[in-house]
Amino acid sequence: MSLKGRELRSTVEGDRLILTLEEVDIGDPADDEIVVRVEAAPINPSDIGLLLGPADVASLERLDNDRPGLSFRIREARLASVAGRAGQSMAVGNEGAGTVVATGSAVSSLMGKRVGMIGGAMYADYRRIRAADVIPLPEDASAVDGAAMFVNPLTALGFVETARREGHKAIVHTAAASNLGQMLQKICIADGIPLINIVRSEEQAAILKAIGATWVLNSKDADFAARLADAIEQTGATIAFDAIGGGSLGSEIMQAMERASVRGMAEYSRYGSTVFKQLYIYGALDTSPTVLNRLAFGFQWGVAGWLLFPFMQKAGPEVAARMRERVVRELKTTFASNYTRTVGLAEALEPDVLRAYERKATGEKFLIDPSRG
Amino acid sequence: MSLKGRELRSTVEGDRLILTLEEVDIGDPADDEIVVRVEAAPINPSDIGLLLGPADVASLERLDNDRPGLSFRIREARLASVAGRAGQSMAVGNEGAGTVVATGSAVSSLMGKRVGMIGGAMYADYRRIRAADVIPLPEDASAVDGAAMFVNPLTALGFVETARREGHKAIVHTAAASNLGQMLQKICIADGIPLINIVRSEEQAAILKAIGATWVLNSKDADFAARLADAIEQTGATIAFDAIGGGSLGSEIMQAMERASVRGMAEYSRYGSTVFKQLYIYGALDTSPTVLNRLAFGFQWGVAGWLLFPFMQKAGPEVAARMRERVVRELKTTFASNYTRTVGLAEALEPDVLRAYERKATGEKFLIDPSRG
Repeated sequence: MSLKGRELRSTVEGDRLILTLEEVDIGDPADDEIVVRVEAAPINPSDIGLLLGPADVASLERLDNDRPGLSFRIREARLASVAGRAGQSMAVGNEGAGTVVATGSAVSSLMGKRVGMIGGAMYADYRRIRAADVIPLPEDASAVDGAAMFVNPLTALGFVETARREGHKAIVHTAAASNLGQMLQKICIADGIPLINIVRSEEQAAILKAIGATWVLNSKDADFAARLADAIEQTGATIAFDAIGGGSLGSEIMQAMERASVRGMAEYSRYGSTVFKQLYIYGALDTSPTVLNRLAFGFQWGVAGWLLFPFMQKAGPEVAARMRERVVRELKTTFASNYTRTVGLAEALEPDVLRAYERKATGEKFLIDPSRG
Repeated sequence: MSLKGRELRSTVEGDRLILTLEEVDIGDPADDEIVVRVEAAPINPSDIGLLLGPADVASLERLDNDRPGLSFRIREARLASVAGRAGQSMAVGNEGAGTVVATGSAVSSLMGKRVGMIGGAMYADYRRIRAADVIPLPEDASAVDGAAMFVNPLTALGFVETARREGHKAIVHTAAASNLGQMLQKICIADGIPLINIVRSEEQAAILKAIGATWVLNSKDADFAARLADAIEQTGATIAFDAIGGGSLGSEIMQAMERASVRGMAEYSRYGSTVFKQLYIYGALDTSPTVLNRLAFGFQWGVAGWLLFPFMQKAGPEVAARMRERVVRELKTTFASNYTRTVGLAEALEPDVLRAYERKATGEKFLIDPSRG
């Protein structure tokens, strides 16, 4: 007789997006599976992408039945992009942590253990999952400590790994005061890699300076472009990771890289410098188009999407294992996440709460604890 | 006692761009060098980039002295981008062909031979050059046949080589009716690689159909987007080479690739398809910014500049040799260029002539023959 529990679901129905809590059967674990009681699951920007993606939050309405639930109008421009998920009730929540409450026969040693896990459907009372997809937490780590041990830590480590593999010696990062950005800064300090942090407020700059950042630039400053060019020239940065995506900030970064490279050239070339500049777009804080003023940075450049899982696959199991081990080792230092608010599962569908985490304000970070109701 | 001859030079002086013919000493060939009398040199878009790049052609004025020469105002928006060449008298003309009229001691067997060559400064009466940088032409090939045996042929072969190395099975090409585009189509037919040609007029479409193209799409057609998506779905194209660069055509191509890939997916993913889509920008027919509506094509994509010489270096000497051999073998078939007008060196600086080749109209192609004066 298997457990029942609630799961948060997002469904596109015609031109509406519907959020509900569904009562589901957890099902008995297979031999290599466990059932985890979810005690902590972070709300990452990528979760909000699936949860609300195309919805116009201002159009929020409560469902008019007994279940907790919300309904939104989908912005017309985004309708085509979500045609693929129409009618599919999608479970949400990339990662989380909790306590093992049932096990398959081959993995019974995990019973009662606290584990971190990744694989979706974490905004739920229980998650049945393959034992291979969880990591047992160290004795002194709480579920909160392990809730976000995959996406941000592995992404930050993945950036450094990518930069090294591709031969870059310094990194530029945008929206740099995020939890992810703070982890990246701590890694770069430990590994001796210069990191240029781009933020949008003095408050964000202060967060990074407090953890020892050397290079912090505020893109709202009047002399931002000049300071960026200087920082790039002094560090030799030729790779950037951009969480924003829309607009021309990525282009401005590559232009500054090009300017720094051209200063070192003996001879003019109409094709620009011979130094390769790479911009990776890993987020979509700005959903408007990316604008590349490419004539300002020659022909030696690349722009690409960057996603954690394709990167991990390309990097291979040894690199992945090394990265995971580092996360466990530094779980409460480098990879500590700060949460400003913890909410229950039903509470996550309260209009005021939803509007608060949907803003994705830097410094604010929400955690879901289903045991709170 | 060395030869003297004329060289076409482009110089940025303040906010003016100056074109002149300079009388220069050719200099005696070193042991491994030869002197070639230039008999044919094509005017490629990339040559026009160096010749006129930032100039406002409408502002053309004749120099007020005895030498043939022209002066142009540099467009203000482009001034910063040419600061690096200020004051440098730059020789023009990427490639050409002619007859060897002097040789160094180690390469005397080349005396009197007809050769094709690359290395700049070809808009000149004579070119002193390392013997290693020329290719002797087959007996039946004229200087006109060998004038453009490097840039377009190697670029077209480089596209196919790039597509193969990166695992793509069909190619999209823009501005596809160019001499380069025609070569690419012939190669793709010979090698059995589906090629989707994008052109901007029915006249251009006819050029490609005449050489056997299967897929020719006119971007001015009302149903262009739908036809592009169909062609991409039927061929499985996941790589595009774009000569235009500015605007959103590249983005539309990647969107069509994404749409075709998503149709084959069993499950919706908010990160888009797992199929990697690559856009290479190799030209700048439109100098406006590149606009990427990246949310329409997920995270599995890359956009990059593509340049022949960095590609050849990366590909290595064996691949380069194989490519060159194929060019020589197919010089009068696959790699034949069509010229609509041949002009002398002084004539290339006549205002009407200059305006004509500066237009870069498809189907029009100019050749310089310095022996015509």
